[in-house]
Amino acid sequence: MAKRPLILVTNDDGINAPGLRALISVMNSIGDVVVVAPDSPQSGMGHAITIDSTLYVQQIKASKGPQKEYSCSGTPADCVKLAIREILDRKPDLCVSGINHGSNSAINVIYSGTMSAALEAGIEGIPAIGFSLLNYDWEANFDVTKKYVKKVAKNVLKEGLPNGVVLNVNIPNTSENNIKGIKICRQAKSNWVEEFDKRTSPLGKDYYWLSGKFVNLDDGEDTDEWALENNYVSVTPTQFDLTAHQHIKTLNTWDLNNTETDLE
Amino acid sequence: MAKRPLILVTNDDGINAPGLRALISVMNSIGDVVVVAPDSPQSGMGHAITIDSTLYVQQIKASKGPQKEYSCSGTPADCVKLAIREILDRKPDLCVSGINHGSNSAINVIYSGTMSAALEAGIEGIPAIGFSLLNYDWEANFDVTKKYVKKVAKNVLKEGLPNGVVLNVNIPNTSENNIKGIKICRQAKSNWVEEFDKRTSPLGKDYYWLSGKFVNLDDGEDTDEWALENNYVSVTPTQFDLTAHQHIKTLNTWDLNNTETDLE
Repeated sequence: MAKRPLILVTNDDGINAPGLRALISVMNSIGDVVVVAPDSPQSGMGHAITIDSTLYVQQIKASKGPQKEYSCSGTPADCVKLAIREILDRKPDLCVSGINHGSNSAINVIYSGTMSAALEAGIEGIPAIGFSLLNYDWEANFDVTKKYVKKVAKNVLKEGLPNGVVLNVNIPNTSENNIKGIKICRQAKSNWVEEFDKRTSPLGKDYYWLSGKFVNLDDGEDTDEWALENNYVSVTPTQFDLTAHQHIKTLNTWDLNNTETDLE
Repeated sequence: MAKRPLILVTNDDGINAPGLRALISVMNSIGDVVVVAPDSPQSGMGHAITIDSTLYVQQIKASKGPQKEYSCSGTPADCVKLAIREILDRKPDLCVSGINHGSNSAINVIYSGTMSAALEAGIEGIPAIGFSLLNYDWEANFDVTKKYVKKVAKNVLKEGLPNGVVLNVNIPNTSENNIKGIKICRQAKSNWVEEFDKRTSPLGKDYYWLSGKFVNLDDGEDTDEWALENNYVSVTPTQFDLTAHQHIKTLNTWDLNNTETDLE
């Protein structure tokens, strides 16, 4: 690529998150960076968009560097939509989201604001990557991630991604010496076993706090969970065509169009 | 099935939505119904969950009938989690979500609270279906939908669904005579071309309203969009394994683990 690429940077932990600052610093070394990120944390927002409320956008400067920065009152998906339609002069060459404070591997991809931003860019035909570090601390050390973030981003700029595919990159929370390399993976079968902590408010009203335990149901050695447990950086190609193509044939054998029987 | 099935009913338009009431009336004719639905409209919430705030649940009765009803302050995915862990005595035999006031075909599945509830149930191993009528009006007539809702639900109870697959059912907004039948489909390639309406508040602050136009990019005759345009009820098998399996081989040819080159 002759000229410097235009890179859109966003996240779901909010514009002041240290993970976003780490991502900006890596992207500044690769291209021209425009940041459009939520003004407050949006974790667990899934692919929410703001369709019945107003959106505010404000140009700010939260850290030194050549990047332009905009803070937005919406969700990660809103940020990407606003960036493309209202803020950027041209379609970006790359959209990166993160670096998330915490894992987005396995089933977590479906609840992930970080990945919803990357998927939204993918829907717009922009090569996109979501990055996450397996450390939920606000004070997490992102130094180890930078080499892998740069490597994956530069490969995407060089090779491109096919329409409909974005990358979900998760980085183990360990020292640089322990990381064995990068592994291409599939999403592990898994779920959360929720626990609801039931409490009573000072006014006598019952309420719940959601918490839970992640359960990996998949013993495959080609999954993102296996890679991360074994100190590899996982790269999972992720799509927004949710069709279960393999099940179409079976459904066509069902008794759906026989008006004589009603299965009563 | 010898005994009456236990059916969990939810939606994203809120517990008072006429579409939910239509769905409850059909399900009451099939099984024992428990409703756990958001106390306010949640459209466009995607797969959001409430992880940093309290959840309130209240037993109510919003319309006549044998169903039990609970109103919940959370998102559609929260409702399903709470129902399974805190409200129901046993795992339901079926979870149905909707009937949504408006389409969830094509790329809309990814922004859909209706489908996020169905997917959440699917993740828990419960056969699940999301239903939508292509009419956004609160006063829409759901009478035409009932026959198809019953047909699909009874087929799912009879045949089951494989792990990892839920159904996305969309119903055209037309008279019963015009509907040609039920068609098994794939998700059409499509996107939204957003338009942001920029305005200024009384205090001089700029803000935006998100609006846009849906664009079908797919001329296949096996898509949900084609089916609906041609007055078929579309049934799209939908999955929550987002892995783009077909792209794993290509990614394995990339230069990701060569530490000598940095692609500088």
